[in-house]
Order: sequence, then C-alpha cells, then structure tokens
Amino acid sequence: MSTSSYRISPESLIRVCAVILQHYGTSPSDAKMVADSLIEADLRGISSHGVLRLPIYIKRLQQGLVFAKVEPKVINETPNTAVMDGRDGLGQIVADRAMALCIQKAKGNHIGAVTVRNSSHFGAAAYWAMKALDHDMIGIAVSNTTPLMPVPGGAEARTGNNPIAVAVPADREYPIVLDMATSVVALGKVLLAQKKGDAVPLGWGVDEKGHDTTDPADILDGGFILPVGGPKGYGLAILVDILSGLLSQGATGSAVKSLYHDFTEPNHVGHFFLAIQVGAFLDPVLFKQSVDRYVQYIKATRKTPGVHEVYLPGEPEFRRRQAQAAEGLILPSSLIEDVVSLGREADVEARWLDELTREPLA
Amino acid sequence: MSTSSYRISPESLIRVCAVILQHYGTSPSDAKMVADSLIEADLRGISSHGVLRLPIYIKRLQQGLVFAKVEPKVINETPNTAVMDGRDGLGQIVADRAMALCIQKAKGNHIGAVTVRNSSHFGAAAYWAMKALDHDMIGIAVSNTTPLMPVPGGAEARTGNNPIAVAVPADREYPIVLDMATSVVALGKVLLAQKKGDAVPLGWGVDEKGHDTTDPADILDGGFILPVGGPKGYGLAILVDILSGLLSQGATGSAVKSLYHDFTEPNHVGHFFLAIQVGAFLDPVLFKQSVDRYVQYIKATRKTPGVHEVYLPGEPEFRRRQAQAAEGLILPSSLIEDVVSLGREADVEARWLDELTREPLA
Repeated sequence: MSTSSYRISPESLIRVCAVILQHYGTSPSDAKMVADSLIEADLRGISSHGVLRLPIYIKRLQQGLVFAKVEPKVINETPNTAVMDGRDGLGQIVADRAMALCIQKAKGNHIGAVTVRNSSHFGAAAYWAMKALDHDMIGIAVSNTTPLMPVPGGAEARTGNNPIAVAVPADREYPIVLDMATSVVALGKVLLAQKKGDAVPLGWGVDEKGHDTTDPADILDGGFILPVGGPKGYGLAILVDILSGLLSQGATGSAVKSLYHDFTEPNHVGHFFLAIQVGAFLDPVLFKQSVDRYVQYIKATRKTPGVHEVYLPGEPEFRRRQAQAAEGLILPSSLIEDVVSLGREADVEARWLDELTREPLA
Repeated sequence: MSTSSYRISPESLIRVCAVILQHYGTSPSDAKMVADSLIEADLRGISSHGVLRLPIYIKRLQQGLVFAKVEPKVINETPNTAVMDGRDGLGQIVADRAMALCIQKAKGNHIGAVTVRNSSHFGAAAYWAMKALDHDMIGIAVSNTTPLMPVPGGAEARTGNNPIAVAVPADREYPIVLDMATSVVALGKVLLAQKKGDAVPLGWGVDEKGHDTTDPADILDGGFILPVGGPKGYGLAILVDILSGLLSQGATGSAVKSLYHDFTEPNHVGHFFLAIQVGAFLDPVLFKQSVDRYVQYIKATRKTPGVHEVYLPGEPEFRRRQAQAAEGLILPSSLIEDVVSLGREADVEARWLDELTREPLA
C-alpha cells in the first residue's frame, strides 16, 4: 500500500509546527499563533495557505529575510487609525498585532483602520478578518503581493492578485466570510492543470506577450494569470495596493518582493485592516438575526437542475472545518513528510513527529 | 439627413433637466444637483447612468413612488457613524446628504461611515465616492439594487448587481476612480446584443433554469446576468447588500424593488458610504504624490502588441469628460427628444428646449 495522505489530529500538527517555529526564534505564544493560522487554513480546506507555507517561512527565517522576534511598531496613530511598521517580521505576527489594535480602536471609536508596511506573507486573509467576529464587528483584511497580473492591455506583471477578505457575524448561522484573490484563479490551479496535462479555460491567463492562451505552459513560462473580470479585478487589486502600500508609505508594485523567488530582500508586503463595530449602527443582536434571515433567504433560492444546495461565502469552509476538526485533518503525505523533515532539523521530539504519520491513508 | 445625435452644451442640458425636476417638486438647488449628477455621468461616458434615467425618475415622481422634497433623517449617530432614513426621497438627494455627513464625520474623526435605508436609485456610484476627493479623503460608495443575479448554482435572482465605487485622490494625475457593478456586464449590454442580433460570450448570463447560454433572448426572457468571477462577484454583491441593507435595518434582496418594473411601492434601496481621511495616516501631499508615482509605474508597463496605452481605473472617464466638456456632449437624438418632450410637459421655456436640438449630427 502506497501512502498518499495521512489523517492527523490538528492539535498534533499545531504542536509540531509551533516547536519548529520556536526553534528558529519565534516566541512560544507567537509560534503557536502562527502554526494555528496555517492549520486553520488547512482545516477550512484552503490548503494553498496552510502548512504548505511552513517550509518557505523557515527558509526565509534561516536566511534572515524575515524576523521571528521583532515587534511591529506603531509609527503614528489617532484614536481610530494607525500606521504600523512590521519591521520585516513574520506576517502573522504583524497581522496579529495590527488587527488587535484595529479592533481595540473600533471598540473605543466604532471604526478602526490600521495600515501596515514592511510585513511579510500573512497567510489566509480571512483568518484576520474573522478576528472581528467575536467582537460583533465586521472585519476587513487586505494585503498586497508581488506583481503577478498584467494591467488590461499590458504584457508585464504590474499588480499582485491582492486578496480581499471580509467577515460578517451572524447569530445561529455561520458567519459570512468572503476571501478572494483578485485574479481569476490562483497560480496553483494553473500548475495543477499542467501536471495533469489539461488545457485551462480561456481567460485564466495570457502568454508573455499578453495574448490569450489555454496552454498552462504559456502562462507559467513568462506569461501571467489575469485579473478577475478584467478591469474589475484589476481595479480592486489597485485599490488594495493603495490602501496597503501607499497609505502606509510602504511598498507597492514591483517593490513588493516574491515569497518564493526573491532571496535578496524581505517581502515588504503591506496590509490594511478595517473593523466596523456593528453596535454603532444598531443592536448587534438584531443585526446578527437579520444576517441569519438573509442567509436563509439566499439558501431558499430555486436551484439549477442537479444542484441540491447553494452556499453563502465562507459556508463551505465552515462545514469542512467542522468535519475535519471532528474526523481529523487529511493532508498529502509529501506535505507531512516535509513537516517531519523540518521537525527533525529543529530537534522536535520524535514521539511528536511520529504522531503525524500514525494514520496513513491509501 | 437623418439626425442620429445632437451635440449639446452640458450647461443647457443641466438647466432643462433641473427645471423639469423643479416642476415635479424638487427644490431649485436639489434639482440642479440631481441634474448635474446625471449629466456628469454622460460627460464621463457612463450614459447608462446619465440623462437616460430622467424619464423613469419623473414617472416615479408623478406616481408618488419617490418624493422630491422629503429631507432624509438621521436615525442614530455617533461622532463617526450614522444611520439615515432616506424616506423614499430621490436617491441623489439622499446620497448628497449622506455623503456630506460622512465627509463631515471623517473631518472630525478621520473615518466616517453612513448607512442609508429607504433611498432610491442614486445614479452613478462614482459621483458620490468622488465627493471625498476635494477633502483629501478616499471615498467609498456602494448601493444595493433589486435582485438581478442568481447565486452560483441558483436559478432565480437573489442579489442585485450591487455597484461598488472607490475614489482615491492624486496630485497631478487623475484621481483613481473604480466604479464597478458586481455582474459580468450590465443588462444593457445584453439588450444591445439582442438588438444587433449578436450572440453574447459564454459566461455573461444563464437561462431561466440557470444553464449557460450565448443567446441574449435566453437571458432576457426569464434568465439572468451572472456575477463577475462567479463566487467572487456573488460574494461582493452579498457584502454590499449587508452594508447597505442590513446595517441600515433597511431592505435587502427581493425587498429592494425594481426602478423599472415595480410601480406598487418605492425602491427601498440602501446605500453605504465610507470616507477615510488620508491625513490620519500621512501627509496628504506626500500621499497624493505617491499616487502619482504609482499611476506612472502602472502606465509604464510593457504592452500587448497593438496596444498603445493602458489606463488606470477612471482614467478613460476623466479623459472623455475633458473632451466632452470642451467640445460638447454628444447624445443620441432619441434621448434628447425624450428630454424635450418631458420639458414641454413641464412648461420649460421653449428657447431653452430649442438649445438642445440646435446642433444635429448625421
């Protein structure tokens, strides 16, 4: 029997990842938080932002391109706004402090906004937007990335596929959580099509001259993925760059460096966080009940033949999280072997590593 | 020579439209403002939100489905937030008061947010977002609309193609202004294809069962236009509905009525406005200069063969406005004839109406 994946307890995986991060200098509480942010993405089925990212984080920590211990610094602030310098710390540590400050400001002043420069990859944007939920707030988290997409009419990457996440609290229903890249698809989906030998649909990407193509190789070898909806995704990506990069006096466009392809300097990523206190507008309980009714209204729609259920933004992720938290997280064996190998290098106790490969699946 | 269009001075057209609006009860200053909002859209080349809308506004004013004189009312407020009841007034009058309040709150408290219920069609969303520009603020204006789009997997309209507009001030360059519907295309483009006998691209819409189609008739006769980027446009439309309709305790989904197809009750549209004072984060001059550099960075991109220039969001509209303000506004003759006919019914002086048809174009 060849092992294609393992079933793992999320807690075991968090413990191992946290010890690895600690080994490279992260404080115990931050290490646990960063690990939680990654495994939370895996639990939600967003594996592109899960433990898959740990090896590159460790590589950059080792090379001094991201720092495990620096504390982000508030450059200037008002009662409801702040500019923060992430000082090239791990993106999750920076985002944690920035979103906490944003929520604190919204508690005292109804709306909080924090813009951040000199941060690094912060994982899934939804993780930070969702921090607002327990405070009866609507949370927004966006981040710029290194350029991946051309401008409409362009033949050169000029903007990142800058993600936008928004989280809205509900009462008994799942919160509504949108987390979208501003590209049609993630680059990972093009890679997957190439591996399978499939063509990609027209509109996913262009070749190096900016011409439409259905060949994954054209997109991957010098070409580009495209903004969702052409000028619409492009416009949204630009706005994220402005809020994250210009409002923070940080980096935008090509001054934001690639997590995977640039080993000469830190990411210089920027983020922008917004928290809106629902109670400033109406009784939060009434609001959350109205969100519930809205969810029920959407789900009661007539469906296309063959479709049994429609979902609110974020609902599939909440359902997957519930199932995987109960039944265990299933992850590809190659991914787990990478974590085990990082764990050995970081002197993680063998019995903790063994827990990760205890339940192989065919 | 058959006349297909007229060249008109924007001022003449504003005067006539304003007198018509006054005839139906709008105050002189509001009438001028509403007319300006429509002609501004025409000047910017967004004729779908221009004078084309005047006949339906007048029809609804006549039928008592929208009110010319009511003053929107603040239901509750904090130093930086407010909930407003539009009391079924003309959407432009409601939006004018709400955005002014939003900007005033942002002046005193860095960020202002105003949500609005019981409003009506407010014209182009960009018009309101752009009100922030002169105050060195970033402006955001969104609105819900009557349901037009199905949920992914649905076969029934459940959300509007709720527009999102964001305006960012620049120094010497044009401001960056995004104004996007959350559908792939406007319904008007499907109508146009049908008139021309053209098929529409796959992805623009579905038939009444929710199946993909390229036949405009399938979309128009019981079918639907689709959200841009599937779950992405759907998610954005949902969020606009929540900010505009739930945060205001107003209407969402099918409780928002059609401007054109429902003559039993007011629109019950909701809006949400946000103004962010740039000065809360950094010196506005430094910010606007950085926006200029960003614009130049984007425009300096390598281009696809055959493309001579790429544009920032809003740039084509600023250019068109500049040209049409100088050379006159060119509008289809049928549109102008509608305005002239409304003008006659509203006892507009004949010499003012004559000015509209003085320069016919073949």
